[in-house]
Amino acid sequence: MELKPLKGTRDFLPEEMIIRQKVLNRIKNTFELFGFQPLETPALESWEVLSAKGAGGEDILKETYNFEDLGKRRVGLRYDLTVPLARVVASNPSLPLPFKRYQIQNVWRYGDVSKGRLREFLQADIDIVGSESMLADAEVIACAVSCLDSLSFKDFLVRINNRKILSALIKFAGIEEEKSLDVFRSIDKLEKIGKEKVKKELEEKGISKDSIKKIFDFIKIDDVPEKVLERIKELNFDEGEKGIEELKEIVFYLDRMKVRAKIKIDLSLARGLDYYTGPIFEISAEKEIGSIAGGGRYDKLIEVFAKRKIPATGISLGVERIIEVMKKRKMLEEKKSNTEIFVATVNKEVLKKSLGIIQKLRENGIKTDFDLRERNLTRQLEYANSLGIPYVLIIGERELEKNKFKLRDMLKKIEREVELSEIIKIFKN
Amino acid sequence: MELKPLKGTRDFLPEEMIIRQKVLNRIKNTFELFGFQPLETPALESWEVLSAKGAGGEDILKETYNFEDLGKRRVGLRYDLTVPLARVVASNPSLPLPFKRYQIQNVWRYGDVSKGRLREFLQADIDIVGSESMLADAEVIACAVSCLDSLSFKDFLVRINNRKILSALIKFAGIEEEKSLDVFRSIDKLEKIGKEKVKKELEEKGISKDSIKKIFDFIKIDDVPEKVLERIKELNFDEGEKGIEELKEIVFYLDRMKVRAKIKIDLSLARGLDYYTGPIFEISAEKEIGSIAGGGRYDKLIEVFAKRKIPATGISLGVERIIEVMKKRKMLEEKKSNTEIFVATVNKEVLKKSLGIIQKLRENGIKTDFDLRERNLTRQLEYANSLGIPYVLIIGERELEKNKFKLRDMLKKIEREVELSEIIKIFKN
Repeated sequence: MELKPLKGTRDFLPEEMIIRQKVLNRIKNTFELFGFQPLETPALESWEVLSAKGAGGEDILKETYNFEDLGKRRVGLRYDLTVPLARVVASNPSLPLPFKRYQIQNVWRYGDVSKGRLREFLQADIDIVGSESMLADAEVIACAVSCLDSLSFKDFLVRINNRKILSALIKFAGIEEEKSLDVFRSIDKLEKIGKEKVKKELEEKGISKDSIKKIFDFIKIDDVPEKVLERIKELNFDEGEKGIEELKEIVFYLDRMKVRAKIKIDLSLARGLDYYTGPIFEISAEKEIGSIAGGGRYDKLIEVFAKRKIPATGISLGVERIIEVMKKRKMLEEKKSNTEIFVATVNKEVLKKSLGIIQKLRENGIKTDFDLRERNLTRQLEYANSLGIPYVLIIGERELEKNKFKLRDMLKKIEREVELSEIIKIFKN
Repeated sequence: MELKPLKGTRDFLPEEMIIRQKVLNRIKNTFELFGFQPLETPALESWEVLSAKGAGGEDILKETYNFEDLGKRRVGLRYDLTVPLARVVASNPSLPLPFKRYQIQNVWRYGDVSKGRLREFLQADIDIVGSESMLADAEVIACAVSCLDSLSFKDFLVRINNRKILSALIKFAGIEEEKSLDVFRSIDKLEKIGKEKVKKELEEKGISKDSIKKIFDFIKIDDVPEKVLERIKELNFDEGEKGIEELKEIVFYLDRMKVRAKIKIDLSLARGLDYYTGPIFEISAEKEIGSIAGGGRYDKLIEVFAKRKIPATGISLGVERIIEVMKKRKMLEEKKSNTEIFVATVNKEVLKKSLGIIQKLRENGIKTDFDLRERNLTRQLEYANSLGIPYVLIIGERELEKNKFKLRDMLKKIEREVELSEIIKIFKN
């Protein structure tokens, strides 16, 4: 029988979990500092919701796990946290707006594992529902940057663009509007598959060489934010103007919010999902690694479900990528156990008499473990050591009588005699 | 389009999530006090693993979500956290034993929603793998009791029994051994469907009236733990003796560990899953509510995967049931938001100038929100009030100039003038 987890999914042993919990606690805390509140939704959604027009779009549906449940209803595992949010907002019309929520849950996509893609992975999303203001877009970017700050990330880059500008570009390049989403999806692959392959893909989609050239001449414009916006404005870019204004505002707010990350307007940024309608953003840690966060404004998605216009914007932190980078950069301490004291006893009789002491330590908030395999003292110390537990309390008959115990510092390899009350004091500090 | 979540699954809005997070944090912390370390496994497992002989058994497989994935492999959503643990232990032979792990994750079962059953629900499990000692069984019971203590539960009952005793009973009642699991599954339903229906079920399974009488005469024995064990011993109960000894030991250890919950030996306790081999336990909060935690020893499950004998025992907290009881008993404070301060500004210009102040508050660890909809002051206060945010900081042009702001206590409805540094001091305490 195959004992490894299914391809693209992973078991997280304690060592890995301790890292994940630490990273997630920091992220969660930062989300709450910015006024976001927790939300969770079910893993399974009806296929109707997942495949709604205006939701994730066909590319993502191709890799969405879906099946008939035992009641013969077609259901699927969610591929993102945004579509479920839209459904929640639509089904709770009395929610006070803006609704600022965070959601840290797994999503599932049947991706190509040979390309290192995961099939179950964690996302940490923040979204602001019910605000048209670019302040909301700036707020989600600022919060994502602050998350990375809290994890001690250095030198990351925030790239922003606007779907309104890209739509205007489509027109400017002489391409039919119906092909926009298709073109965006191709441009989105630029970093992953390179310029030549994207060009080829566009040709296959029936885009003329001339149009492709116009697109590539445009998206390569590279300068400081103000200059980029000025230069594209000169192109007499009627319908993109709103998009340009929006980006200006975002840049202004981010400055006021004292976001110290480097901001870049990247006209080649497209994002793969269909539902974006305005500003789009991605944060990358290093050029070669790809994005560690991404999002954008989707003013029309919630309407699909709610039948009334509710603007929204948000960003998703790629937790897996973030942890990967942090590991590579040795930013995380590795630990096999959170236990603080291991109580080692000389024999079973002493252990029986020590159960009250163990209970006392735990009652005082000290993470305590003890032997459950009737091992000798040496073996117990080895076990504590294999888990990296920092202290061992050694108890024999004499120690029980005197009510004084040996506390061994496993790292420094020194022992000292202490009373129970002293131990409690030491660990409480 | 149906906007509610699929039947038997739920959306958790912030108000609900804040409660859940609080409960889970307490449980997690208690698990760690007892030396358990975190583990997580994928939602999807291969059908081969889920349906392995000796795993959950046929009753549970009938309600397990399963399908062919996009690669044509039969997979299913996990129905418990124990079978995945067994797989993890088998696939990681170098894990130091005993392996004490906790796992707090959802499980899925396509149950009958008309009977109030959920199809996605959270379990919080602790297990000790690699110890034969009854101390391990006592440890998981003590930890579960301590979790309930930490949540301020009163008057709960720990019921214990032993599959070894039940197996001996089957023999004693003249029933073929092959029918044991079938009989256990029926007895397990006693609380849910009542005595008469269980009797009928047993008859339908081909058990004679005489055997059924013997079973019911036996399982109704009720007394203090010591007396129950004495009385059943008198029945000349050869093969159950080991089971009786085990229960004696557990009762002894729980006393030494100063577990103050009421312990009862309940010979009618059977547990529905196939994999139990020794002591089994359930904790209930009130008689009428059913169990809020349950588990037992399963010394043969891991062998199914690992091909070597690895004893194990564990208990699972029914988080959903626990929260339900806590709500009913009004043990939980309801809150719509974790935000501490809402910054209300008199107009957009002032807001722009206040972004640095907001940033400062957040940098100092104060959970801060502000207006994103360009509302007037009254509306901003209403919004803060609708979310139950306890303080509002009111900022106008004059306040910005003087660097003194109005801090409004929303509950007491009083305001006072404060400087930014004072606010930070107040909230840090």
